[in-house]
Amino acid sequence: MNEFELIDFFFKSIPHDRSDVVFGIGDDAACLQIPAQTQLLVSSDTLVADVHFLSSWDAYDIACKAVMVNVSDIAAMGGSPCWLTLALTLPDYNQQWLQRFAQGLTDSLSRFNIALIGGDTTRGPLSVTLTIHGLVPANKAIRRSGAKVGDKIYVSGPLGAAAQAVVFLSRTDIDADDLHCLNQKLMHPNPRVDLAPVLQQFATAAIDISDGFSADLAHICDASQVGANLNLAKIPVHPLVENYQGNNAIEFALSGGDDYELCFTVSSADEKEFLHALELAGLTCYQIGIIEATPGLRARQLTGEVTPLDVKGYSHF
Amino acid sequence: MNEFELIDFFFKSIPHDRSDVVFGIGDDAACLQIPAQTQLLVSSDTLVADVHFLSSWDAYDIACKAVMVNVSDIAAMGGSPCWLTLALTLPDYNQQWLQRFAQGLTDSLSRFNIALIGGDTTRGPLSVTLTIHGLVPANKAIRRSGAKVGDKIYVSGPLGAAAQAVVFLSRTDIDADDLHCLNQKLMHPNPRVDLAPVLQQFATAAIDISDGFSADLAHICDASQVGANLNLAKIPVHPLVENYQGNNAIEFALSGGDDYELCFTVSSADEKEFLHALELAGLTCYQIGIIEATPGLRARQLTGEVTPLDVKGYSHF
Repeated sequence: MNEFELIDFFFKSIPHDRSDVVFGIGDDAACLQIPAQTQLLVSSDTLVADVHFLSSWDAYDIACKAVMVNVSDIAAMGGSPCWLTLALTLPDYNQQWLQRFAQGLTDSLSRFNIALIGGDTTRGPLSVTLTIHGLVPANKAIRRSGAKVGDKIYVSGPLGAAAQAVVFLSRTDIDADDLHCLNQKLMHPNPRVDLAPVLQQFATAAIDISDGFSADLAHICDASQVGANLNLAKIPVHPLVENYQGNNAIEFALSGGDDYELCFTVSSADEKEFLHALELAGLTCYQIGIIEATPGLRARQLTGEVTPLDVKGYSHF
Repeated sequence: MNEFELIDFFFKSIPHDRSDVVFGIGDDAACLQIPAQTQLLVSSDTLVADVHFLSSWDAYDIACKAVMVNVSDIAAMGGSPCWLTLALTLPDYNQQWLQRFAQGLTDSLSRFNIALIGGDTTRGPLSVTLTIHGLVPANKAIRRSGAKVGDKIYVSGPLGAAAQAVVFLSRTDIDADDLHCLNQKLMHPNPRVDLAPVLQQFATAAIDISDGFSADLAHICDASQVGANLNLAKIPVHPLVENYQGNNAIEFALSGGDDYELCFTVSSADEKEFLHALELAGLTCYQIGIIEATPGLRARQLTGEVTPLDVKGYSHF
């Protein structure tokens, strides 16, 4: 099977239900119809074998993780994911691997009504680069740079589980149910597209938590030229991380990457209305701190003392 | 330097002059304003070290080649290139390499007024995935599938030089001027964006020549459910390929990849007007055959005999 047959067989056949795809896979480029009054969002993420995932993972999980990581970037802008290109580099032609990968793509794309519109398949060390395209109503994209002094800082869900799963990757002595739950968080993160309508209306800044909560909040602070004061007692830590890490759990929640929850800010004046909208939508978020003028991150410890917070997150270099 | 500082230092600083970039590098996604009455073109290409280029190449050339290969896909649709994302995977942090790579990006993007709007930088085996975005007037994108029986087949320039350059990559006994000229064709192909206005008006089908001329023409024939009859005497072969390959030169022109000229078809009824438009634009293309109903490729040999043409092109698998 050559690469064209491979693309046709495994990828061109992935169904979608989008009338805005004028044409997708099978030409030199895909062609898309962009609705009036919207702006286009574009984001690329690469997942490299044995850096972002293990080569030994089921290809189904690799595909799901790659899609979810990319969808999360669109969610962080308050947008809707629409179209995806896939650049897949493979060490060899492995039909079973490709079947699992294509199934993972199919299932994760259909969940968000995303069309696979093109890409490239090459031979080389295993890696996956996805470029996702989303839409947002004109001038409603939520940037990292909009946080203002006095804004409340929110996080969309419990943190630390993906980092805990990474620690357990080579362990064989962990309770199977716990391990399954943690691995689900690592391999099948849940991008918070459900928050987009509320965030479009109320968030002054937003980011997805990929590098680690404190590192990602620091990105908002840097871009907005502000600082942040957190209340550690309010940080939602995943219960299994509490179980396994005890006193160290908060460290996992603050520094562990790959959570793909959203961190965002809401002006104090809008907070009541925001919480009402959230409740109407059946969603829960956690208020964990406040934006301040002084640069840097600070945190109120469980002891009541406020101390500077070290920003730790993943860096490739 | 961590990956964020790296991105800021080398890539965020690349200038552009596009008012349709609402915002680019530095957020979870870029945001773009799409003009009314246009459609969006999207294409991804991966270049893997020691498959598509040598690791030993100057990073400037690697960047240029990656950009040109992607721009060529937009040219093949009759579109204008606009925005690019870069997913760069690097084995280590090498400042000199990154400087050269960023300079190559800067020069090749400015040549086409393309904005670098985002991407991802990861550690791993060297590879470059670019996703290019272009615009085309609504319903004017030229597909592979539009060729009709009786259409004339055109190619936009001489073929075979990139394949000849690949053959000479490890040779030290070649005339320096010849080698430079051939390497320019391999490392700095010239995507035929200049043809877009004429192609939008006259081409019934088009493709860029990346896998090899006969393989790419076969893609047009397959997509259009037609066949092709070529006149080998009319195929434009690069003069240096004639010099070095003699009787084998036509084989290089037909099967060598990486030329990035365009192959396209024009209806016989429009041919006179097409040639006039081409002349007005100061451009030259070569009529090399005709579309026929019988599937497959055939070629009139220099002897006058018409024989089936083997389709040879690069395949990764």
